[in-house]
Amino acid sequence: MTAKIITIGDEILIGQIVDTNATYMAQELNKIGVSVIEMLSIKDQTSAILTALEMAQNQVDLVLITGGLGPTKDDITKAALCTYFDDHLVENTEVLAHIKMLFEKYISTKMNASNLTQALLPSKAIPLKNNYGTAPGMWLKKERTVFVSMPGVPFEMKSLMIESVIPKIVSDFKRPHIIHQTIQTYGVGESAIAETIADWEDALPEHIKLAYLPSLGKVRLRLSAVGPDKDLLEKEVSDLVSEVLPMLGDIVYGMETADLLEEVVAKTLTLKKQTLAVAESCTGGKVSAAFTALPGASAYFKGGVVAYETLQKTNLLGVSESLINQYSVVSKEVASAMALGVQKLMNTDFAIATTGNAGPSKGDSDAAVGTVCIAIAHPKGVHSEIFSMGNHRERIVQKAVNKALELLQKEIIKF
Amino acid sequence: MTAKIITIGDEILIGQIVDTNATYMAQELNKIGVSVIEMLSIKDQTSAILTALEMAQNQVDLVLITGGLGPTKDDITKAALCTYFDDHLVENTEVLAHIKMLFEKYISTKMNASNLTQALLPSKAIPLKNNYGTAPGMWLKKERTVFVSMPGVPFEMKSLMIESVIPKIVSDFKRPHIIHQTIQTYGVGESAIAETIADWEDALPEHIKLAYLPSLGKVRLRLSAVGPDKDLLEKEVSDLVSEVLPMLGDIVYGMETADLLEEVVAKTLTLKKQTLAVAESCTGGKVSAAFTALPGASAYFKGGVVAYETLQKTNLLGVSESLINQYSVVSKEVASAMALGVQKLMNTDFAIATTGNAGPSKGDSDAAVGTVCIAIAHPKGVHSEIFSMGNHRERIVQKAVNKALELLQKEIIKF
Repeated sequence: MTAKIITIGDEILIGQIVDTNATYMAQELNKIGVSVIEMLSIKDQTSAILTALEMAQNQVDLVLITGGLGPTKDDITKAALCTYFDDHLVENTEVLAHIKMLFEKYISTKMNASNLTQALLPSKAIPLKNNYGTAPGMWLKKERTVFVSMPGVPFEMKSLMIESVIPKIVSDFKRPHIIHQTIQTYGVGESAIAETIADWEDALPEHIKLAYLPSLGKVRLRLSAVGPDKDLLEKEVSDLVSEVLPMLGDIVYGMETADLLEEVVAKTLTLKKQTLAVAESCTGGKVSAAFTALPGASAYFKGGVVAYETLQKTNLLGVSESLINQYSVVSKEVASAMALGVQKLMNTDFAIATTGNAGPSKGDSDAAVGTVCIAIAHPKGVHSEIFSMGNHRERIVQKAVNKALELLQKEIIKF
Repeated sequence: MTAKIITIGDEILIGQIVDTNATYMAQELNKIGVSVIEMLSIKDQTSAILTALEMAQNQVDLVLITGGLGPTKDDITKAALCTYFDDHLVENTEVLAHIKMLFEKYISTKMNASNLTQALLPSKAIPLKNNYGTAPGMWLKKERTVFVSMPGVPFEMKSLMIESVIPKIVSDFKRPHIIHQTIQTYGVGESAIAETIADWEDALPEHIKLAYLPSLGKVRLRLSAVGPDKDLLEKEVSDLVSEVLPMLGDIVYGMETADLLEEVVAKTLTLKKQTLAVAESCTGGKVSAAFTALPGASAYFKGGVVAYETLQKTNLLGVSESLINQYSVVSKEVASAMALGVQKLMNTDFAIATTGNAGPSKGDSDAAVGTVCIAIAHPKGVHSEIFSMGNHRERIVQKAVNKALELLQKEIIKF
């Protein structure tokens, strides 16, 4: 079973927003064995929408469409659907009642005429209830292809996917099996990994593919197997993984597709009932934010200090001025003192500290742009390293966050 | 002049990565008046690549392609280009020398055979130098359409775009004019804004479009004007903006397309030589991270405390236990005490504090999931508000960050 995702919106094509909707829909389809063969983003224009619908009709079994269903005048998807399906709009009483309920219960502004137009649907459409918004989803069929139209607001689309679209696909379509297995690694580059596992990779059967997904100090390896027999696929992939893991050794930190490194760290800390604090300079809150973005962070995460100004490193974290003068604020020694300082301040088992120069200018230290020191305080002392992380501010910060998580995980598993 | 963006990679189609490359390329093309009419993501398959190239050939003037140029075996774009252009690979000595230099200077792992294959290019391709990586860009032409192939690693692609691709487009193509003007608003929803400016919007001329781009408490309004006379377009847009701004009033916080709310706040603070500290509970470091992501943050940002555990609120920020017991940890009173605490601790003019329950479980307080209190300490006291921000963890946190920035900006402009 194949699918195509069409996202509608000039804001995507001028690059004003990133199309995360397509990614989410692809993830959900993939989980139920639907193969997304294309994603297409098109303009808010009737002709562009009609062309895209026509082309998809002869191409795939399922087309998921988002965007262009809002109440304002730049939204034209519904009219285009009427043209394409040779249909007309009729007021749907259930949808109208739902819109009125939403306004009464949750929305502080007054309902106006444009909100009411959202209860008008093509007569051939099966409406899909939008629990979080006023624009319903629509399920339409033409010959062998099903078209599903959803609003472009991400959390509304997500709720529609989970509660209506995916269940209806599962009940209406037969699907083949796709198995993915991800191996998450850190600390070694793509080419070096490829060389290490070259023989294994060359021997992969035709129906099992390997992909390398590198990102800032981490590489995900993804095996994808397609076939009719789910159990056989699972066994094949499992055998292949058992072969390759010993070749990769201790660079592997996780095996779940969606596992973030911080989730792996979080699970380990929670399991071991150990606690964490963070002292950040160049990463500016991003290490703390990575942990607190996860539900359940309060089980192990006590807090953090963003000691951006040098004065805050001495005042809050107890780093001595003489140490800073002797080694400079970007140094392994100051990173260690920061880590030990916040570990003591918040009374935790482990602590991360970062200090560096993310550029573009030199800041409080003489360190070259890209120099980052990371320290991990653990129950028996502190470990500190210095890195050179390039010259791109955003990348330096993200690399520093990833490296801090890597170093922390490597310490945690020792205890 | 029209363009199409093609991104190649199974990892996009199974939803494992978000296609931010397409967004970036669209932004850069848009700035020089090139209209992106479609973005397409396709599989790592020769047949899919060939079909996409063929279809684009009759559709647009320029095709930008990313992905499938890495050194490992899952990268097949170069072979597909050879087939499509009826060409063969030849070793490019300049590219080879560049690869060797990169390994000598910057890369700690050893160069291997797969790295050397990156110096092989289709003979008809003009190579574009990749300063940050081993895979060069390639510029190829077939009839009226130019095809540019770039690696999928975002920072390599970005550098190629800025240093090679955009300058070559500017010198090789004639382009029409596109003017965009964004008006950034906060605090009021899309429908309410639409109703307020309905008459003005109805009177817009045919060649000027308005789009509403809502996101978590903020709405961007974007006017787009297309035409042959740049000066006339600018005057028309400027006149329209002058008409609509008084209708919108104080919900407008910025006029730059790419302005983030934190950039507006940062500019204001830097200009006024005023300083900021942040105390975060439910936002967990995200407010600090928003500011420190911007270059030049050290001019006004002293630091932050992530007081995730309740104990840290009393220990570090001096919030009294009796206050917490009386009002609960998620309360306007505790938010105010946190803001005043960090303002004093770091000796700043302004301070932000957040405390709330982002869910999914109740945490340290009895507050309902979605309850967030935000306080702004300013030179004459403190302002505090309580909000209900839904039930989706990630959205609650991002909404809280946006609202904190909004409340801060509203205080700053008073001083």
